[in-house]
Amino acid sequence: MTSMLTPEQRQYAKEFRAFADEAVAPHADAWHRAQRTPPQAVRALADQGLLGLPVPTAYGGGGCDAVTLGLLAGELGRACSSLRSLLTVHTMVAHAVNRWGPRPLKETWLPRLARGESIGALAVSEPETGSDAAAVTTRITRDGDGNWRIDGHKKWITYGETADVFLVVGRSAEGPTALLVERDTPGLRTELIEDMIGIRASMTANVYFENVRVPAAHLLARPGLGVSHVSGAALDLGRYTVGWGCVGILDACLDAAADYAGRRVQFGSPIKEHQLVRRMISTMYADAQAARLLCLEAGRLRDAGDPGALAAASTAKYFAATAAGRAAADAVQIHGANGCGPDYPVQRYLGDSRVMEVIEGSTQLHQVGLAEYAFQERAPRRQR
Amino acid sequence: MTSMLTPEQRQYAKEFRAFADEAVAPHADAWHRAQRTPPQAVRALADQGLLGLPVPTAYGGGGCDAVTLGLLAGELGRACSSLRSLLTVHTMVAHAVNRWGPRPLKETWLPRLARGESIGALAVSEPETGSDAAAVTTRITRDGDGNWRIDGHKKWITYGETADVFLVVGRSAEGPTALLVERDTPGLRTELIEDMIGIRASMTANVYFENVRVPAAHLLARPGLGVSHVSGAALDLGRYTVGWGCVGILDACLDAAADYAGRRVQFGSPIKEHQLVRRMISTMYADAQAARLLCLEAGRLRDAGDPGALAAASTAKYFAATAAGRAAADAVQIHGANGCGPDYPVQRYLGDSRVMEVIEGSTQLHQVGLAEYAFQERAPRRQR
Amino acid sequence: MTSMLTPEQRQYAKEFRAFADEAVAPHADAWHRAQRTPPQAVRALADQGLLGLPVPTAYGGGGCDAVTLGLLAGELGRACSSLRSLLTVHTMVAHAVNRWGPRPLKETWLPRLARGESIGALAVSEPETGSDAAAVTTRITRDGDGNWRIDGHKKWITYGETADVFLVVGRSAEGPTALLVERDTPGLRTELIEDMIGIRASMTANVYFENVRVPAAHLLARPGLGVSHVSGAALDLGRYTVGWGCVGILDACLDAAADYAGRRVQFGSPIKEHQLVRRMISTMYADAQAARLLCLEAGRLRDAGDPGALAAASTAKYFAATAAGRAAADAVQIHGANGCGPDYPVQRYLGDSRVMEVIEGSTQLHQVGLAEYAFQERAPRRQR
Amino acid sequence: MTSMLTPEQRQYAKEFRAFADEAVAPHADAWHRAQRTPPQAVRALADQGLLGLPVPTAYGGGGCDAVTLGLLAGELGRACSSLRSLLTVHTMVAHAVNRWGPRPLKETWLPRLARGESIGALAVSEPETGSDAAAVTTRITRDGDGNWRIDGHKKWITYGETADVFLVVGRSAEGPTALLVERDTPGLRTELIEDMIGIRASMTANVYFENVRVPAAHLLARPGLGVSHVSGAALDLGRYTVGWGCVGILDACLDAAADYAGRRVQFGSPIKEHQLVRRMISTMYADAQAARLLCLEAGRLRDAGDPGALAAASTAKYFAATAAGRAAADAVQIHGANGCGPDYPVQRYLGDSRVMEVIEGSTQLHQVGLAEYAFQERAPRRQR
Repeated sequence: MTSMLTPEQRQYAKEFRAFADEAVAPHADAWHRAQRTPPQAVRALADQGLLGLPVPTAYGGGGCDAVTLGLLAGELGRACSSLRSLLTVHTMVAHAVNRWGPRPLKETWLPRLARGESIGALAVSEPETGSDAAAVTTRITRDGDGNWRIDGHKKWITYGETADVFLVVGRSAEGPTALLVERDTPGLRTELIEDMIGIRASMTANVYFENVRVPAAHLLARPGLGVSHVSGAALDLGRYTVGWGCVGILDACLDAAADYAGRRVQFGSPIKEHQLVRRMISTMYADAQAARLLCLEAGRLRDAGDPGALAAASTAKYFAATAAGRAAADAVQIHGANGCGPDYPVQRYLGDSRVMEVIEGSTQLHQVGLAEYAFQERAPRRQR
Repeated sequence: MTSMLTPEQRQYAKEFRAFADEAVAPHADAWHRAQRTPPQAVRALADQGLLGLPVPTAYGGGGCDAVTLGLLAGELGRACSSLRSLLTVHTMVAHAVNRWGPRPLKETWLPRLARGESIGALAVSEPETGSDAAAVTTRITRDGDGNWRIDGHKKWITYGETADVFLVVGRSAEGPTALLVERDTPGLRTELIEDMIGIRASMTANVYFENVRVPAAHLLARPGLGVSHVSGAALDLGRYTVGWGCVGILDACLDAAADYAGRRVQFGSPIKEHQLVRRMISTMYADAQAARLLCLEAGRLRDAGDPGALAAASTAKYFAATAAGRAAADAVQIHGANGCGPDYPVQRYLGDSRVMEVIEGSTQLHQVGLAEYAFQERAPRRQR
Repeated sequence: MTSMLTPEQRQYAKEFRAFADEAVAPHADAWHRAQRTPPQAVRALADQGLLGLPVPTAYGGGGCDAVTLGLLAGELGRACSSLRSLLTVHTMVAHAVNRWGPRPLKETWLPRLARGESIGALAVSEPETGSDAAAVTTRITRDGDGNWRIDGHKKWITYGETADVFLVVGRSAEGPTALLVERDTPGLRTELIEDMIGIRASMTANVYFENVRVPAAHLLARPGLGVSHVSGAALDLGRYTVGWGCVGILDACLDAAADYAGRRVQFGSPIKEHQLVRRMISTMYADAQAARLLCLEAGRLRDAGDPGALAAASTAKYFAATAAGRAAADAVQIHGANGCGPDYPVQRYLGDSRVMEVIEGSTQLHQVGLAEYAFQERAPRRQR
Repeated sequence: MTSMLTPEQRQYAKEFRAFADEAVAPHADAWHRAQRTPPQAVRALADQGLLGLPVPTAYGGGGCDAVTLGLLAGELGRACSSLRSLLTVHTMVAHAVNRWGPRPLKETWLPRLARGESIGALAVSEPETGSDAAAVTTRITRDGDGNWRIDGHKKWITYGETADVFLVVGRSAEGPTALLVERDTPGLRTELIEDMIGIRASMTANVYFENVRVPAAHLLARPGLGVSHVSGAALDLGRYTVGWGCVGILDACLDAAADYAGRRVQFGSPIKEHQLVRRMISTMYADAQAARLLCLEAGRLRDAGDPGALAAASTAKYFAATAAGRAAADAVQIHGANGCGPDYPVQRYLGDSRVMEVIEGSTQLHQVGLAEYAFQERAPRRQR
């Protein structure tokens, strides 16, 4: 695969892998069990400049391309899906601010986000609103002095418990509207959601807004464009990095399964000699390759500004997430009783993979939506 | 389905369902989260006579048939796979004692097991020995006074942390050998295994034997027959009740999914209107029916003493366990973010279903073994 | 399985099997290749009384129950799906005439159908109308003398090329309307459809109606009830026998695969020693059992007049058809190059199985519809 | 995808598509039904220089890279799998001659093969020898004057009925041995195999060798290296082009399904509005993309002389063939009754896809083999 990377991208990949192997993977099970990401883990990411990778250099970021960001998401995803999801939401917020924020807002916030001094979280989904972002009910109104006021309840906000700044999408008179809101604004309160099936260290939270006042200058794009433009742009990037995160899960499952199958002896030989075990590993192997190439293609098209990038990112996320689900179930199965116990990471991968099939466009949403791309792309072919 | 039950079985089924709905289901998530079955839950089962259901009436049991036992396993499995697994292991021990124990042992222990005064657990698997029971390494030797001595380490012993008596299979000079061992025998120590992927309330434990002395009279069958006869017989019954337990998981997934799909609104209508949601529910529905009929057939053949009962139990367990795995993943998916959170039971079903594909003959073991039945049954047909 | 059959049903099953093994199976590949069912094959069925099995004895039929009819469909399906489809459509017509025909029509036609002197075919589907029977466009009008006139084009009419009498559903002023039409009525013309993917010997035809005059007395039920009552009743029976036909395909795949796997040597041993081959055979084995039990249950409920019979027949057909599709693909795969060649029956099974997923309610129609049963059955449970 | 092609490759792709659309696709169903490839179809390929694409320019070939060859295989595969299989076997023979033939043999035959004056076929498999090439039983002996003599029976030889020259692998005293044999050599006889499940126009034949004398100079590599070196090298290339051929089937299924779903109306709307239809199309779409990228990657690695090219080609073939099997079954299903009839190409795709899962390493062979690559690649990672 590396044949398609530039030397610079290859160098990045190596560093990302080293970082994930040393600073993340050895701790991921403990974080999972504690249901917390420790602040020093976030600090370590920030210190390496990994939280500002795609932010323009003018704002203190790494100015990296999408492929490079994807490589990082893949390596983090292999080590810890929770930390990878931090990268995803933080990067989504930075991307939305960069794309749709007024200049003063960008000048204030992008450097902080790029350096990881402030962690950003996306506050779109609500108890009754999942995939259908346009249906948000959080109210955004103007108060007398031209500022904004937010009232509502956001749920399933990844890293909501610790984020410093939220990209909030609510409903104003003009329609869906996006605001940047600091954590310490009065009236904003968060509450950790524990006992999740996956990304258990992701500090996922309820975020409550009660008469929260936000300066007029914290508006992104125009009122009414909060979903179509602001969170839409973020979502597309999110889908892309989640796709790569699933490549990471596939890699992790493959590593774990190959390692275990070589060491576990049953009926007199290592279980890697059993065709049924090989079949599961072969499937993981092929799926991991396919998912990686789909993600890489999505990154390349994104970097090229190709209009096909949207379809490619959806395809990559859909394929990688469903493949990760299969791989994780098989990895648990290969580990037998040990896969059901606490001593191997595979049960973590299983739970994480289930979340991947739900977020950033559920598997079902893509099953409906990818066909639309097929209809569009195939129609002209038929008319030639 | 009930058309095939006797009036008596139908009455039992009704009572089992009522018990499961009232005494078990409402607490199962709490037990799951606490990773403990409270003693009163076991007490309640015992008080209803449910722990001695298949024990002959002569020993104070219910003298019930296999179909009736299966119905109970199904209802418990719908409510709580941990408690269902208590029924499974306890019944396996009672069955082995009844089938292979010397009369005095039966007279002492069967009434206690039947009344649920003593809880039995099966201590066969070891850290390095899963499906390949004949490879157990726990040493059984004779001491000077004709009694037995056990040294070894058993792992993944369901309800090992709280059981009162263990059916232990170890290796003596004559080969695999089965002994009944009381918990308070000196040298026996247990250690709870926490953070399992499923049946998290099942008190699964490591059981350590260090110079444990057991009376000669606690031997089941003869030395050397510990696997082929004693745990083999138990395993066959275990497979059968686990199959039914999986029918319970399928029912639980279907209940949860149908209920949620009727109430959750997305894009303007209940998600039960979406074909992709219906497809998942239709699959669960058909699989649940198929699994139930396979289990019922296995029970009927068992009750008839039909030699095909072994194949039927394996088929039922294999089908039901894999179907439960699919159903649980789909049930989580239908619940979306809520399926990944702590407020719905579906993530419990997912973890439980993974365990079901590993225990009492893994899915892979059945994929190898069922074909053997096919070869045997088909051969004569071809020769006619 | 036979434990659930009455001695009489068991005796029938034995005879059906013998008939299928001797009179059908040895010729099925030749018929498949010739794309024709020879008249003597139909004659043989009729001579054994197999075409009138469920017709009441008062009309010269066998007066058999649904389970017995299913056993026959299973055995014919194992031997030849085309001939099984003759049983299906002929029986559907007889059933509709018996249920909805006026007495004189019954007295004339049921004895002929029962003796197999006349073969009946169902003429419902049209080029643009598949699952959506209510959308038929064939016009039915009254002519001056009170008789009916039919104009239209029916397609995919199984045994349309040779049937003696058609149950035609068209659209009259009152809505969907069902008429019994004799082949030699002027204006009726048929045209064999060749090169089908499966049931290639089934004489499937286009049937054209051009100013076809039918006596008033040939009306079934009332005008307007042609779909809701007449073809609806037939369809339900059709679904049931097709389900059994798929059990037959599963059995045939299993027979072929088990036989071939025991004889074909690769890499030094019979391929039945390969786990991956065993896995496919084990899946077929379990699926065949499950499908058979589902069909048997549907038959039993039908015989008991249980309102659950409809859901059970749909479940059985859906499960059996999809399982047959998997089994046939795997049976071809197990046969390797020989599976792709003309010397083994498995490519016939593959094509036949594809047809089974399309007819009598496509797989997708059931994926939408079974969920409805789940919602209905589960709702009361939740309210208790 | 085209972002990764060179301008030259893109130009080729365009021409290949035009050729396939004009000269192949419109006739493919007729060839399929006639079970023959007409000579003028082969002529057309040759006239465009498409049969010598990868042969070095020094021998009159196109000197093209593997990616370009793959693009051609993809376009031919989309139009007609039989003709694509001609490209595969002809190219395999040319490749083996180029890699392992002595110079005079190359100088005689490569120009003929490059111009398509002579068509080459690979004669390795035998009635009892499929995947296990080393087990060939065709005897190769030396006669008195130093020439070779061949006796044996080859089966399933693609385009064996019409090929001009055969690359034969038999067993000599030294082991597997490869010879180039002209069709008109006395003692060589071919016999067309009809009624195959797929690639029905591929002129697949039995080839009988009875005392066939071959000049000493027609030996490729050394005696004993016929499988390990000669047919091994050919097989690797064959796997690669078959993988691309499966991409073509995926594309063809997607074209057919998208087109039909947009035009077929059921229950009042085009079936493309049904989620269950969209799901099948979305899966095809994602699988087609993944398969294409895997094949492209395999081609790029092959062109780079990367040792990973072998694993990549196996991965691509395995993934693409299984995906094509799924897609073809779904394409038939989407077409409903029309998918089972003769008027649409989808039943052709289904049969062709079944062959793809059997040839050039069956799906099961790859399920065993890919895991080996996983073990090798993962081991060093774990040791870092």
